[in-house]
Amino acid sequence: MERLLKQIEFIKEIDKIKFIFRKTKLISSNRNENDAEHSWHLAMMAMVLAEHANEPIDLLRVMKMVLIHDIVEIDAGDIFIYDATKNHTNTEEELKAAKRIFGLLPEEQAQELIALWEEFEAGETADARFAKAMDRLEPLLQNSSNNGGTWNEFGVNYQKVYDKKKLIKNGSETIWEYTEKLINECVEQGILKR
Amino acid sequence: MERLLKQIEFIKEIDKIKFIFRKTKLISSNRNENDAEHSWHLAMMAMVLAEHANEPIDLLRVMKMVLIHDIVEIDAGDIFIYDATKNHTNTEEELKAAKRIFGLLPEEQAQELIALWEEFEAGETADARFAKAMDRLEPLLQNSSNNGGTWNEFGVNYQKVYDKKKLIKNGSETIWEYTEKLINECVEQGILKR
Repeated sequence: MERLLKQIEFIKEIDKIKFIFRKTKLISSNRNENDAEHSWHLAMMAMVLAEHANEPIDLLRVMKMVLIHDIVEIDAGDIFIYDATKNHTNTEEELKAAKRIFGLLPEEQAQELIALWEEFEAGETADARFAKAMDRLEPLLQNSSNNGGTWNEFGVNYQKVYDKKKLIKNGSETIWEYTEKLINECVEQGILKR
Repeated sequence: MERLLKQIEFIKEIDKIKFIFRKTKLISSNRNENDAEHSWHLAMMAMVLAEHANEPIDLLRVMKMVLIHDIVEIDAGDIFIYDATKNHTNTEEELKAAKRIFGLLPEEQAQELIALWEEFEAGETADARFAKAMDRLEPLLQNSSNNGGTWNEFGVNYQKVYDKKKLIKNGSETIWEYTEKLINECVEQGILKR
């Protein structure tokens, strides 16, 4: 029962992720996406796209990774991927957040989730490479379906998008092939500037 | 590539779940929860509470179930659990929705997800029993943390809550023990009427 009470505290605390808004907007909508919605969508993507991974992956681990990857933002906030003034590697603040929030759980569960989050951030295992590919693909699907979305709003051009998205290749060559085509189509449609 | 294009269509279509609002409100907030947020939260709950399941469960299957269980509401809408005028068993409309939406995927994936959704709805396997326990527990955590939330708003009393929540027992005796205590505390606090 003591373990359960700790787990319930954690479950209540992470409700706050529903108030963390991303820069990216939903498909066919002008409303910004929050981190809970984003994490749900990545898990769904991992589920249906797993077959395209370059290497064998453990789908359960990938799904856990994408479901938890933004929980640290409850304390540390969302950092826009195209903001060049911000540090995008694991910040001290994020690590502190991970320890506080996952630390609400029983010790060995906290350790498991902190380790999974660090593995995602490092992006050096097959599971993390595929999870990161999902994280890069979702906003592209949103912006390309939503008349350029945040690209226009923040003056992001083809090269910047290409440079960020090429990480997808590490997770899936097949999805990268699709991604390259989609980025080019966005340029042709005039919703992404050269 | 043909398979990938079908999968991408599905991934874009399910973005609409972010516009389906539940009656239940977030913890410490007066904003209603949407189905994407709800599904994310259930997957997180399944992840951290799995050890309390009465029977051995396959966590990956449970997580898939809770992530997809409300996708049919994109077409069929949300039905309030305490609405006695509505049919809460699998409606024709929901089955049609499942076939249309999951049917965007390659055939065998569509079959897998329709079957998983039907298994969840029937609630007759260990995985479905535990998944349903998560679905019943989350709004209780919300209402009990949010000054009674939808209970007051819709005149739901102790007996109605108890009758709906006792399904949790089928998934986890331990969580049910916690649930019973929590419901009683809500009555004592005066946020749930006898």
